[in-house]
Amino acid sequence: AGDNPDLTKARQSANFHPEDVTAFLFGSKEIVERKREISRKASKFQLIQIAADTDLANSVPLEFLSREKLIEEQCRKASLMVKKVHELVDVSNQAEMKQLNEEVFCIEGFPFFLHFGMFLPVLQGQAHEELAAEFLPRAMTLGIIGTYAQTEMGHGTNLRELETTATYDKRAEEFVLHSPTRSAMKWWPGNLGKMSNYAIVTAQLIIDGKRYGPHNFLVQLRSEKDHRPLPGITVGDIGPKFGAGGLDNGFLGLDRVRIPRTRMLMKHAKVARDGTYTPPIHSKLNYGGMVYVRAHMSHTQANGLALAVTVATRYSAIRRQGRIAAEQVSYPELNAYCSQPEVQVLDYQTQQYRLFPQIARAYAYRFVGDEVLELYQQTMKGIDNGEAALGIEQCRMACGGHGYSLASGLPKPYAIVIAGCTYEGENMVMLQQAARYLMKSVKRAARGEKLSYSVQYLGKTGAARSSIGRCEGQREKEYEAMLSSLEHVARRLAQEACVLWNKRIEAGETKERAWNGVTVEMNRAARIYTRLFIARAFHRRVTSAPASVRPVLIDLLSLYLHYECVDMASHLLHDGHCTGEQIKHIKQKLYEDLAKIRPNAVSLVDAFDISDRQLNSVLGKRDGNVYEALYQWAKASELNYTDVLPAFGHLQQMMEENRAKI
Amino acid sequence: AGDNPDLTKARQSANFHPEDVTAFLFGSKEIVERKREISRKASKFQLIQIAADTDLANSVPLEFLSREKLIEEQCRKASLMVKKVHELVDVSNQAEMKQLNEEVFCIEGFPFFLHFGMFLPVLQGQAHEELAAEFLPRAMTLGIIGTYAQTEMGHGTNLRELETTATYDKRAEEFVLHSPTRSAMKWWPGNLGKMSNYAIVTAQLIIDGKRYGPHNFLVQLRSEKDHRPLPGITVGDIGPKFGAGGLDNGFLGLDRVRIPRTRMLMKHAKVARDGTYTPPIHSKLNYGGMVYVRAHMSHTQANGLALAVTVATRYSAIRRQGRIAAEQVSYPELNAYCSQPEVQVLDYQTQQYRLFPQIARAYAYRFVGDEVLELYQQTMKGIDNGEAALGIEQCRMACGGHGYSLASGLPKPYAIVIAGCTYEGENMVMLQQAARYLMKSVKRAARGEKLSYSVQYLGKTGAARSSIGRCEGQREKEYEAMLSSLEHVARRLAQEACVLWNKRIEAGETKERAWNGVTVEMNRAARIYTRLFIARAFHRRVTSAPASVRPVLIDLLSLYLHYECVDMASHLLHDGHCTGEQIKHIKQKLYEDLAKIRPNAVSLVDAFDISDRQLNSVLGKRDGNVYEALYQWAKASELNYTDVLPAFGHLQQMMEENRAKI
Repeated sequence: AGDNPDLTKARQSANFHPEDVTAFLFGSKEIVERKREISRKASKFQLIQIAADTDLANSVPLEFLSREKLIEEQCRKASLMVKKVHELVDVSNQAEMKQLNEEVFCIEGFPFFLHFGMFLPVLQGQAHEELAAEFLPRAMTLGIIGTYAQTEMGHGTNLRELETTATYDKRAEEFVLHSPTRSAMKWWPGNLGKMSNYAIVTAQLIIDGKRYGPHNFLVQLRSEKDHRPLPGITVGDIGPKFGAGGLDNGFLGLDRVRIPRTRMLMKHAKVARDGTYTPPIHSKLNYGGMVYVRAHMSHTQANGLALAVTVATRYSAIRRQGRIAAEQVSYPELNAYCSQPEVQVLDYQTQQYRLFPQIARAYAYRFVGDEVLELYQQTMKGIDNGEAALGIEQCRMACGGHGYSLASGLPKPYAIVIAGCTYEGENMVMLQQAARYLMKSVKRAARGEKLSYSVQYLGKTGAARSSIGRCEGQREKEYEAMLSSLEHVARRLAQEACVLWNKRIEAGETKERAWNGVTVEMNRAARIYTRLFIARAFHRRVTSAPASVRPVLIDLLSLYLHYECVDMASHLLHDGHCTGEQIKHIKQKLYEDLAKIRPNAVSLVDAFDISDRQLNSVLGKRDGNVYEALYQWAKASELNYTDVLPAFGHLQQMMEENRAKI
Repeated sequence: AGDNPDLTKARQSANFHPEDVTAFLFGSKEIVERKREISRKASKFQLIQIAADTDLANSVPLEFLSREKLIEEQCRKASLMVKKVHELVDVSNQAEMKQLNEEVFCIEGFPFFLHFGMFLPVLQGQAHEELAAEFLPRAMTLGIIGTYAQTEMGHGTNLRELETTATYDKRAEEFVLHSPTRSAMKWWPGNLGKMSNYAIVTAQLIIDGKRYGPHNFLVQLRSEKDHRPLPGITVGDIGPKFGAGGLDNGFLGLDRVRIPRTRMLMKHAKVARDGTYTPPIHSKLNYGGMVYVRAHMSHTQANGLALAVTVATRYSAIRRQGRIAAEQVSYPELNAYCSQPEVQVLDYQTQQYRLFPQIARAYAYRFVGDEVLELYQQTMKGIDNGEAALGIEQCRMACGGHGYSLASGLPKPYAIVIAGCTYEGENMVMLQQAARYLMKSVKRAARGEKLSYSVQYLGKTGAARSSIGRCEGQREKEYEAMLSSLEHVARRLAQEACVLWNKRIEAGETKERAWNGVTVEMNRAARIYTRLFIARAFHRRVTSAPASVRPVLIDLLSLYLHYECVDMASHLLHDGHCTGEQIKHIKQKLYEDLAKIRPNAVSLVDAFDISDRQLNSVLGKRDGNVYEALYQWAKASELNYTDVLPAFGHLQQMMEENRAKI
């Protein structure tokens, strides 16, 4: 049938080659080619397997399956994939593995998600030699399936007060793992419920009645023979959630479960046979587990948003609705109008205002991904996942009613990305860690000490008045002016929060009580610090891009900066740094940016090069033949297996009785 | 076991009687008493029925059911409810019926949702006498089940260009209903897929080749005898969605389906036997259907938010996490600390900042509900559902990880409320209708003409400088100052948007093109107009409240106004109306409001008087015994029917093979 002609036209209107941008995003044309080869192989493989009835493909859209059936489907594919994985990808290449997982399992979660994401890396990073020798070979080849069980029903963020205990029994040279209360049950770990037969369990180490804080222990949960829970182990699925139905997040109760002393992960902290405790050199080394999730997460955020803007932008080029000039016309005069096609919704300014900043943001997140990762590992854990999640919702709503259907492929990514606001620790708490770092840096700056890279601006003075709009026609100077103004805001908010905190301390509050009285201001400062960092990194990356892609990326950067300034207008105006006129100027420029991006919009999202399988969206598929596909998708609904639902019998009888009464 | 002691303590700390507030919210103590009686009856009824195994209660939590099972469960309960409804409520009382529906069906949707919500009211409002006589008796007694089929796969907001046609065949005196294209299929109507045997179908009326725009027709979809689709009718479920899994949103294709002329709803527009068309007196009368949904919706928004803050506030009083003063302490010194309970998360300022404004908002929405309804029917359709939905998400995230579980009862209300942004028409389009009204009013004001109630402020001049913070100690004057400042902003934005629009027209653009170039500014103006309206109405309502409840409501009002001013700070600062110092002052007052509300928070949400059945939340239940209940809930997961999932066989074999290789 060919592609939807509106999409083809949109692609022809671009003034850059999306292939060049894709290569820049992924690193090189070769990497992109390899990526596509994997897509092709996976889909070819899939076709062969359909014939053999043991395919990697989804027999019906995953969205239609109950959780039980969904997990069955993922198990089936997982066992098959393990056998064939070497034909498809280089298993030592993380990016290739990640892509394959997405192509095969979509967004639903799969049986080895935590095994490879947490269990294996923690085992590699924290197990002492003896333990590693015993378990790593089996873990690496999937002879066992493991997970990482840290959070409890009653404790997520405050790890130091986890309730699960690991009490050392000197005589037996064993640890006794125990859940003393209901709220001590491990709760939430992925793949814990039904898939894993081993887990690394975080528990309070107790020796001779003394507590030494949380440490990690390798605990066997289920028999290797029949997968039944072992004595003392209560394990199961925690039930349905907002998203990730295919993931068996689980609970785990431990009733005085004994494990050998050597099953503690003792690369860093150690317990000798006689109970002598040797602390780790760095106290943080023992909690390291979540870092892997965080690294993974920043990619999830960026990819989720890229996926959502791809769907919404393509569909907005296809979807036609209303007429800009028809407001005053009515029937039957409207008949003449109706011979012309309606307006592509992408031509409405409000739609552009909704979507294009999200495209810019998706690019920014993709570009700064690696730098943010670095920052994570340093100090800053407060990156606002909420931004990406809100962006996805904007994209979903921009698709009108159909965005609400799971056929759009948009509700699930939202549910996954928004989980990032809690699953690696309460977002507010993360922000406060960033704020603490900021406060330390403010004090260092005040003392004239050396500042690390991300907070250099705290040591600068900067101009009291913004020069935005004063360098008409000199784009690079304008960007620098906006970045300087964002720095001005970030600096002022950090300093003011510090002053407020100090005032409370001087008034006699303890440091910590005083902190609780200013946390809203602290979070605000931390959030803007994060946003400034992203803006700076995006700018660096774009201005150093190859000439073939630079112009279109600069348009995105321009939109990004203007949008950030509008969003922070209250802070820019607050101390007279900007005037109302300057804000008006920025808004005007922003509207011009929207118009500039319009012809490039579809190609900009094409350049993310997300395969239709990864996209998993009827509305967003590359060929744009949406409406027929939507109907075919809906027909697969479990409710459509029969014309009349068996369950309807209840109501059929009721109606008959009611009619008889009239 | 008694209530959770933290909750009991929180309730004792309140300085008002929640019963008084509840009576004020619902109208009188008698209404509240009746409401509770229905709750009691419903639950008693339920117990009797459990014994008889035909209960109204849910056999397992609805969250665990597949869509098919869920709909079966709702059908079962629905047929039973119809028989017993007179024992439980006064069926002529809408509020009682609504409550009963919530107690019985929770938030999942039910088989008569559209029948009573749309089909019946449209039939009553638009059918001519003859048609009403034939169908109303059966419709009112559920001898038939109907729905309202308006939106199509390709058209939602632009109703005038719906593709379904109703062509009059003069000779046969019949209309021929037809879907000429794939995108013409009716798509989305609730209960259309499997439940309804009749529908009011909106279609383009065509007589003698001339189009007369959309009109409504009563079409039989399924046999009354066996519920099978009639010839020419293609009908089914559109598949899973973000929320409302229990509702069979459907599709409908019509293949030259013939209906008698008299099945057109002809109370307003008419087609005579000979094909003579008589238009309705008011052209809008024919599209009236959606108005009913809108009326219903404003309640959904308010209730959804009230529900979410109830859950989050109660759980935040129960949940203890971290220690304000423990940051610097580490093991083993921390042991001493651990004998004291951790901090209730409701004591963290960030948590208060997240939740309390949502409590204030929930009250505001509840209070202004009726006024907004009035406004809807007048002119303004742009109420921002997004605000309520975002509020619900804030509440969900404030519950930490457990907020993500369906056990919290929070993901589903979000999915339902956010649907309001699209299901009654694209939110942006609604805002633009409000903006058009605003622009008309700006022009009227400029000509010195009389302005209607909601836009009076456009005719005022107002002070150039805000007096916020200048009336220390005089609370009422402060509120008036804030309201005046919000008016100042609303007026300025409306006027500026008007100027921008005119400039483009003067520069030669058509009125409509010019409009599309300023829609972002128009929407902004419309949104603030809406918010001002709510703030004014909330203020009116609170200041006229009885003395017993006024003080605590005034605290909420104060928080609400301060929060709105902070949120609109950029607009307040823009033209120097407020100074940075004034904004600081407002923030300071806002933090003081949070502290004031803290002891009343739990009682304020208790006063919404939402029954545990309506709440349907493990985290938010009234007695606060959360953790045990969470475990009991999770055990019901479909994945826990067996210790080892049958599906795991795939992986069991895989692991064995892999281990054998080592």
